[in-house]
Amino acid sequence: MNYYHDHRAEFLEGLKAFLRIPSISALSEHKPDVLRAAEFARGELEALGLKAELIEGRGNPLVYGEWLGAPGKPTILFYGHYDVQPPDPLDEWKSPPFEPEVRGNDLFARGAADDKGQVYLQIKAVEGLLKTTGRLPVNVKFLLEGEEETGGEHIEAYVKTRPARLKADAAVVCDTELFAPDLPTICVGLRGMVYAELAVQGASHDLHSGMYGGAAPNPFQAVAEIICALKDRDGRIQIPGFYDAVIPPSAKEREAWDRLPFDEKEYTEKEIGAPALVGEPGIPLFERVWARPTFEVHGIRGGFTGEGAKTVIPARAVAKISTRLVAGQTTAEAAEQLRAAIAAACPRGVTAELKVLSTGEPSLTDPDNPFIHAGAQALEEIFAKPTVYIRSGGSIPIVGVFREYLGIPSVMMGFGLPDDNLHAPNEKFHLPNFYRGMEVLARYLELLGS
Amino acid sequence: MNYYHDHRAEFLEGLKAFLRIPSISALSEHKPDVLRAAEFARGELEALGLKAELIEGRGNPLVYGEWLGAPGKPTILFYGHYDVQPPDPLDEWKSPPFEPEVRGNDLFARGAADDKGQVYLQIKAVEGLLKTTGRLPVNVKFLLEGEEETGGEHIEAYVKTRPARLKADAAVVCDTELFAPDLPTICVGLRGMVYAELAVQGASHDLHSGMYGGAAPNPFQAVAEIICALKDRDGRIQIPGFYDAVIPPSAKEREAWDRLPFDEKEYTEKEIGAPALVGEPGIPLFERVWARPTFEVHGIRGGFTGEGAKTVIPARAVAKISTRLVAGQTTAEAAEQLRAAIAAACPRGVTAELKVLSTGEPSLTDPDNPFIHAGAQALEEIFAKPTVYIRSGGSIPIVGVFREYLGIPSVMMGFGLPDDNLHAPNEKFHLPNFYRGMEVLARYLELLGS
Repeated sequence: MNYYHDHRAEFLEGLKAFLRIPSISALSEHKPDVLRAAEFARGELEALGLKAELIEGRGNPLVYGEWLGAPGKPTILFYGHYDVQPPDPLDEWKSPPFEPEVRGNDLFARGAADDKGQVYLQIKAVEGLLKTTGRLPVNVKFLLEGEEETGGEHIEAYVKTRPARLKADAAVVCDTELFAPDLPTICVGLRGMVYAELAVQGASHDLHSGMYGGAAPNPFQAVAEIICALKDRDGRIQIPGFYDAVIPPSAKEREAWDRLPFDEKEYTEKEIGAPALVGEPGIPLFERVWARPTFEVHGIRGGFTGEGAKTVIPARAVAKISTRLVAGQTTAEAAEQLRAAIAAACPRGVTAELKVLSTGEPSLTDPDNPFIHAGAQALEEIFAKPTVYIRSGGSIPIVGVFREYLGIPSVMMGFGLPDDNLHAPNEKFHLPNFYRGMEVLARYLELLGS
Repeated sequence: MNYYHDHRAEFLEGLKAFLRIPSISALSEHKPDVLRAAEFARGELEALGLKAELIEGRGNPLVYGEWLGAPGKPTILFYGHYDVQPPDPLDEWKSPPFEPEVRGNDLFARGAADDKGQVYLQIKAVEGLLKTTGRLPVNVKFLLEGEEETGGEHIEAYVKTRPARLKADAAVVCDTELFAPDLPTICVGLRGMVYAELAVQGASHDLHSGMYGGAAPNPFQAVAEIICALKDRDGRIQIPGFYDAVIPPSAKEREAWDRLPFDEKEYTEKEIGAPALVGEPGIPLFERVWARPTFEVHGIRGGFTGEGAKTVIPARAVAKISTRLVAGQTTAEAAEQLRAAIAAACPRGVTAELKVLSTGEPSLTDPDNPFIHAGAQALEEIFAKPTVYIRSGGSIPIVGVFREYLGIPSVMMGFGLPDDNLHAPNEKFHLPNFYRGMEVLARYLELLGS
């Protein structure tokens, strides 16, 4: 694998060029940059000799590329995204977000880890094999999207309508992280989500709290009552039936999670910075964040929140809420349970309405699946350490999309780190893992082809 | 009293001129208009032969005038305010807010009822007596402020430092309303208020609800828990000791309130526009809104409330809350009880802090006080109907200020109506009550002087 070692300087410069393009999908003024980043990725694939193209549709283009010169061998679908989060707040960046800078072992730039660095290492892994052997051990397809950060639906619509073209045996999703810098990690489970607005209406118009206080319903009080009915003070969700379908982690998983290197005090005080952790009593932390559903309030719109004192009984309050779901649950059932619990908890004098804004199914892959297993082996060989299987509390909707429309598992083998500052100032990518990531993926393809 | 009948056209034109000045105290660009309105009021007083002046201080000037030609007779302090609320939303006005227009028996303009129309009728009541008899039956002082709508502190500071100059036997506050168009009404009680911000802090920074949901505290959940601990689902305040000092209304008051003309169905469906009324079970409506304390949430700042779905566990939530207080309670004790109840209800993982923004003491005057009694008699004579004694659920801080620093009761004899659209588009003043109000006040001064 000397190719990967010999070309590090070149890879770093290439990634920097990719990162200099401010492909912020959330800001329409950056649309030309988004298109430039798509073209950059397409050009990289084409330079390797892949059939590569931009797929236009509603929203930003998909970048597609394929190498199908290994008939009879498995096909791997690489997924990533070339769009990035907005960089605000700008003044907290130590170096400008779109002027990549190496400090120590880290490369700082918006998109370094999420997800351009990981897209780039996928491409370079394939490059190394092609340049050194002239071929790939398996068939490879790339599908890169440009609106992951904005929840655009182009990719889902495309996957849904073109399953034959995208046919593969497994997807490789490099948009996750290692549990610790030198700990080879595969993520086998993701939580799903139902994100919704809970709108509570009291009076037909705002009222003066002096004149009407004691008679008029207050939708903020009602929202509070509903929220408290949905989750108790100990952190147990009280939505009837919500835990019924939850598949508990296996004994093997629990045991592995117990052994993860972890300092709960530092996590509480430094990483979270709160007086104490919360959550269901008697359930270990990793199980709570990876394998148990949640209910969260993200904000409540309405009423008066400005400076000073305005004595209004607001007519309406709209809470942004979500539940994370775990294996066994479905978004359809969870949304119905949530709706029923809200209806049951809605107090007198107001009406409550639930509007689901977005959903994503939970996913859980068997670690003994051969595509997962090969990934673990590749990681072990390059990192020279046993691979740990973890889950993630977050949601990667594409994993559900691939399973639903292509019927394939996703191998979540990402090379980010927990402190990469995703979506925050000073995003970085740990360069040793950038280089090791290429070797892991190359080795992975070799293992699958052998 | 023919003077008042004969000059109605002139009074109407005079009031219109006063209303054309957009003296919006909340908007600094209207500062010159605020000063113009003050000068207008001062000029009116001076034209009557009163010693009148503008009193400068921090904020908008006070208008002061006095006529002290009745030694040995009581002194009455007339209070009102010449500033008005902003007129937004402008497009809901049927005629421009600062171009007064008579439609039917009503005069439409911002400030018509709140409070320029009532200030103006006080001045004209005095004018009638002076023009027809050359003197007043009692001594009279006027104190008009220009920042009632913004809660400015100039008037309180002035009253506090100049009690000798403002010495009087009673104040007349024309900033309240009749219970119904032809029902002479005196308001003898006001609720007080503690308005505060409840700030709840969880993590030191916003967190991703996927990564941290199940471990990190959510300040919105905590705020909901605290709110629900402070008031139960039936509307009973659960702050320990909060009701202990409450003085219940007298049997006579309760009986009078029972006889008020009132359609609860119309109040619920039209005036409030909600599916049902709420509040403490078993307590009649007027007692709930006039003679019982409340707890209300006005809004909650923090987190994400924009379009779409952002999966954040906010670091902080700040709720605007208030309690209304009734006779027997004090703001100092209520604030302490509230603080203690919040501390007791604060859940694990967060800190809660209460910051009191403003307070006003509750007030209750004995209907048998001679200054109240004379007011009731004057009203009865002019309206030819018995006067009803009511309370108001709102707060008029000046009443507490006069009691505290001048040691005098306030006779709350206002001539507005419940549907005057105060603080809303299409504010109006019912002209028959504008004219009757002058006669009532003139008769009131005669009764006090006799």
